[in-house]
Amino acid sequence: MKIPTQEYFDRIAKFQANMKKAGLDACLVHGTESDFANVRYLSEYWPTFEQAGVFVPATGDAILLIGPESEKYARGRSVLPNVMLMLNYRESAEPDYPGIPLSTFDVVAKAAMGKKKLKKLGLVGTAVMTKPTLDALAAQLPGVELVKADDVFKELRWIKSENELACHRKAFKVAEKAVQAMLNEIKPGMTEFQAIGIAQREIYANGGEYEGHSLYCFGGDRTSNGISRPTSAKLKKNEIIQLNIGARVGGYSSSIGLPVYFGKLPKAQMALVEFGLRAHKYTFELMKAGADAASIAKDYTQWGIDQGWGDYMLYGPVHGLGIMETESPWIETTSNYKLKPNMTYQIDTFFSGDGYGLRWERGCVIQEGGCELFSKKFMSLKDCKLD
Amino acid sequence: MKIPTQEYFDRIAKFQANMKKAGLDACLVHGTESDFANVRYLSEYWPTFEQAGVFVPATGDAILLIGPESEKYARGRSVLPNVMLMLNYRESAEPDYPGIPLSTFDVVAKAAMGKKKLKKLGLVGTAVMTKPTLDALAAQLPGVELVKADDVFKELRWIKSENELACHRKAFKVAEKAVQAMLNEIKPGMTEFQAIGIAQREIYANGGEYEGHSLYCFGGDRTSNGISRPTSAKLKKNEIIQLNIGARVGGYSSSIGLPVYFGKLPKAQMALVEFGLRAHKYTFELMKAGADAASIAKDYTQWGIDQGWGDYMLYGPVHGLGIMETESPWIETTSNYKLKPNMTYQIDTFFSGDGYGLRWERGCVIQEGGCELFSKKFMSLKDCKLD
Repeated sequence: MKIPTQEYFDRIAKFQANMKKAGLDACLVHGTESDFANVRYLSEYWPTFEQAGVFVPATGDAILLIGPESEKYARGRSVLPNVMLMLNYRESAEPDYPGIPLSTFDVVAKAAMGKKKLKKLGLVGTAVMTKPTLDALAAQLPGVELVKADDVFKELRWIKSENELACHRKAFKVAEKAVQAMLNEIKPGMTEFQAIGIAQREIYANGGEYEGHSLYCFGGDRTSNGISRPTSAKLKKNEIIQLNIGARVGGYSSSIGLPVYFGKLPKAQMALVEFGLRAHKYTFELMKAGADAASIAKDYTQWGIDQGWGDYMLYGPVHGLGIMETESPWIETTSNYKLKPNMTYQIDTFFSGDGYGLRWERGCVIQEGGCELFSKKFMSLKDCKLD
Repeated sequence: MKIPTQEYFDRIAKFQANMKKAGLDACLVHGTESDFANVRYLSEYWPTFEQAGVFVPATGDAILLIGPESEKYARGRSVLPNVMLMLNYRESAEPDYPGIPLSTFDVVAKAAMGKKKLKKLGLVGTAVMTKPTLDALAAQLPGVELVKADDVFKELRWIKSENELACHRKAFKVAEKAVQAMLNEIKPGMTEFQAIGIAQREIYANGGEYEGHSLYCFGGDRTSNGISRPTSAKLKKNEIIQLNIGARVGGYSSSIGLPVYFGKLPKAQMALVEFGLRAHKYTFELMKAGADAASIAKDYTQWGIDQGWGDYMLYGPVHGLGIMETESPWIETTSNYKLKPNMTYQIDTFFSGDGYGLRWERGCVIQEGGCELFSKKFMSLKDCKLD
């Protein structure tokens, strides 16, 4: 399951059209090991240890830019035949690599642009673009105007193709298998890390290429954490244990989240589990083509307040889904856009209380009049009780 | 298995002494999800989705700086009680987080420094420091001199304490179990991803908190890649399959690498397997306190050339090991320092040929007169043959 090569070149052509409209001569796109989406979207390349970039001229062929150790890896993997090695993309241990010939941005620009002059270069992926690359640009391209150009690129990733949707659907199927294995096998006394191992085993056994995000399994107060990581703590009876499990397939991510428990939950925790599921399902109804993003967030927030759970709400109820499990665009009360068909989201129904919390979560794709859920499993209270 | 809280404060005190010597008023340390070592070294905090920083004044208490979604997670995990939320550390999806109060660097500096003036701020972790943080520094601390200060910090991480060594030793024990499970269970016809799942299962089942690095299992031409990732290709008979498996324990990484095969290797590949193991063991003998790093790399390289395998050598034979599986310092022909007791390294014996290659790898800690190998398993040709 992968994106056909031609689709990468179609993406680059659309990106180049946007660049021309924006008056840019070229863009430099950045990616890291953990935040590689922009680079992978254009090249299929996914760095490890090192960082990477793609230099895309407004007219002409894109060039994949990599660190000094990845040449054979990149040439085998990248759909872009042009690959150049640069010191600024090396790993953070900062080796010297004596004897390995490396390029600089002036050479890259000349290779990409030929006789065309580079006056204005757009920077994309600026949220993860690092100092070595910024310093190299300043030193190697003196006189070139550098402008933040994330907006010229990021909306391309919002609307998914049928190939991208197929990857997401498969990623959710794999995540379902991993969640089911955890529901079958986790036991009180097992550590959170051990529980994660069950999911990891299933992700790779069933066609996943990696986790879709750092996997969640934790109990106690950590269930109230918006973001967290598992620990060596043991799973306990009679408290919420939060699972969020995502697989990655063909680059594309997934995540399924639900609260589970052994024994019997305290009344207040059980009430939040029940309300959380209602809120999750309430959100499904808001997701449709043409809906205003801020209105969805406001509707959801007001509904939560009206239901008496306003104090448990921390942030917007939905965020974008794609190569990254959390990506642009979010749905917040400040979001100024309308949902379109083939946009993909995670419906991320999170409530944070005092000493406990929970998250119901799954992905969907926007359609006219509604949305298709990427998983319809694990959305019953019966799924939560494990013994 | 974890680093005692006091040890973090001892690290900060040493860092502050270095800062004063360097004439710095404070340092800002940066970490990301995949390159979190500097931040974790000072705080135990490990971001996910978001980035993070530590602001350390030359005198006074350090402050952990996090993204808007991680407050409860950070307060539960950080050994530093001072935690401040900042927009520049948000995830790359760049949500607005309406209603969440956030700090700026001028407020952070005042909180950390009191009445002392911040004139010169050192930047640490610059290899992974991103544009939002650099832009926020420029906007929020006008007039403050920003200087690259990695050197003020990074050597602290070179010499490991007994607690750090205990984490490494345990991480190698876990890696041994994961490798053994793969040797027992992988079969021709299984995909590389499926083989990785066996290792992931064992890492988490045996006390690992995460992979030590993105795990390697691949065959064919990809065994010649200095850096690579597994794929959906099936494991085949009669060719080298490269394994590099690392677990992470208490933050500290490990990796064990060896070439394996089913059936019978072509003569040239088998010769490289044999030579690689000899080269690996040859390197052990060079690793001792007082040895000059560049001399080790030169000796190894000349020895490899003399043995007739010079064309297969790509870069230095040893790199630093710590929280990151590959960290400073490397041992290259350009490395200008002497090895000291309690420095930890990966002996990374990599040979890249035409269509095939391999890597023998394990960690060690430097002692007077020699080194202690963190794993003594999987260093016989018998380990390579799987049927």
